[in-house]
Amino acid sequence: MKVVIVGSGNVATHLGMALKNAGCVILQVLSRQLHNAECLAAMLEADAGNDLSKINREADLYLLSVSDTSIAEVADALPLLQGVVAHTAGSIDMEVLERFPLHGVLYPFQTFTKEKEVDFKTVPVLFEGNRSASRKLLNDVALSISTRVQKASGTRRKALHMAAVFACNFVNHLYTLADDLLEKEGLDFSLLEPLIRETTQKALTMKPADAQTGPARRGDRLVSQAHLEALEAHPAQHDAYALLSESIFRYFRRKDELYDQF
Amino acid sequence: MKVVIVGSGNVATHLGMALKNAGCVILQVLSRQLHNAECLAAMLEADAGNDLSKINREADLYLLSVSDTSIAEVADALPLLQGVVAHTAGSIDMEVLERFPLHGVLYPFQTFTKEKEVDFKTVPVLFEGNRSASRKLLNDVALSISTRVQKASGTRRKALHMAAVFACNFVNHLYTLADDLLEKEGLDFSLLEPLIRETTQKALTMKPADAQTGPARRGDRLVSQAHLEALEAHPAQHDAYALLSESIFRYFRRKDELYDQF
Repeated sequence: MKVVIVGSGNVATHLGMALKNAGCVILQVLSRQLHNAECLAAMLEADAGNDLSKINREADLYLLSVSDTSIAEVADALPLLQGVVAHTAGSIDMEVLERFPLHGVLYPFQTFTKEKEVDFKTVPVLFEGNRSASRKLLNDVALSISTRVQKASGTRRKALHMAAVFACNFVNHLYTLADDLLEKEGLDFSLLEPLIRETTQKALTMKPADAQTGPARRGDRLVSQAHLEALEAHPAQHDAYALLSESIFRYFRRKDELYDQF
Repeated sequence: MKVVIVGSGNVATHLGMALKNAGCVILQVLSRQLHNAECLAAMLEADAGNDLSKINREADLYLLSVSDTSIAEVADALPLLQGVVAHTAGSIDMEVLERFPLHGVLYPFQTFTKEKEVDFKTVPVLFEGNRSASRKLLNDVALSISTRVQKASGTRRKALHMAAVFACNFVNHLYTLADDLLEKEGLDFSLLEPLIRETTQKALTMKPADAQTGPARRGDRLVSQAHLEALEAHPAQHDAYALLSESIFRYFRRKDELYDQF
């Protein structure tokens, strides 16, 4: 399998290394900044370049790993290619690449940091393709680097990206709000470590809804009210507490009512 | 060290076993339901009873591991005792025990399930005592079962309990909201596992605020707005998304402004 990579960021780097380790030949790395292209090309034993019109025409697969906002622009600047052209973004439609006869998406679902190695085998990889030939090639490529490969439409890919905002970005903000409460009392966030690990473990082994505990789950509005009063001096914590408590309360009232109907 | 335990629930069970393994002699287990007292007493090789007036008077330490709402009632029903009397609750003041000359709190900070063994050595244990004698005894007891012992006032204990609501109860609810979004698209929550583990790991190794990523952190209101529109059919997710995005945005705007003043 011969591959050309357009882009030299975190995803291009990790994906390129994973493909090379899986036996693919990386023909070329193209990047706006020639220096960046050369750095990644050296790691991948590939040619480097910064001119999209001089892209190698012999590849089976062209991977566009550039920022979401640049994908359409790069696609338009490329010559027509016979290989499969795929981007690697979570929230961009496959159709942005429709001028290529074979096109698709190869979306590795993890946050990547250049300096930090990733066990790619465990990274979920979602793919889609416009025709059976592009689907087959992307499926084969995905299976060569990961054990968690799934065909997924753009709608599903976007749902996954949205879920990640809740389970990662927003979760981290709740950790921040908790950390602030502790810091004001001279307590260290690491005190929460055993509890955080237990919470994560439970959510991943049973359904998160079934693992829900706490005053709001028990419908204990007296405790919630006392907590809200204690948080009056902390507006960010107060507002998040009020909304999330109410959200939990409603979620389970609805569930319990549905259950009562059986 | 001779100990009497009042209560037979999850905390009483795990704390009792940890104390026994650390070489304490558990003289007696008292519980409203004699059967429950007998079950735990059998595990701890102790006497059992359900009559608070017949409590063993020879103990160095009396641990009240009953529900938050029962602590005051149990304390009032007990005869005067010469040993240290301590409860094990996160959000109840030590003063509820002030009729005992030596009193305090011993608060193990973890969620306990009876059937699931816990490595008590890693469980943070917070203590306070009304006099140096009670503080010393509670400190010694805590150090015999855990490597993470900390003296903490009631205010600090309550802050920790509140932080746990954010970092555990509310975090789990966000996992639930994410799970619902995935389920509607036929995707499995386990796809989030690598990302969740990475998020947790980062929050515990750097400050959570420094680990914040995502559209709201970047101040990218266009992406946030597109997400909100996509969530219009999901009111719980929509409202949580709106509030938490805004909270992240404000949190870092405030920080950045403070930083600009330097």
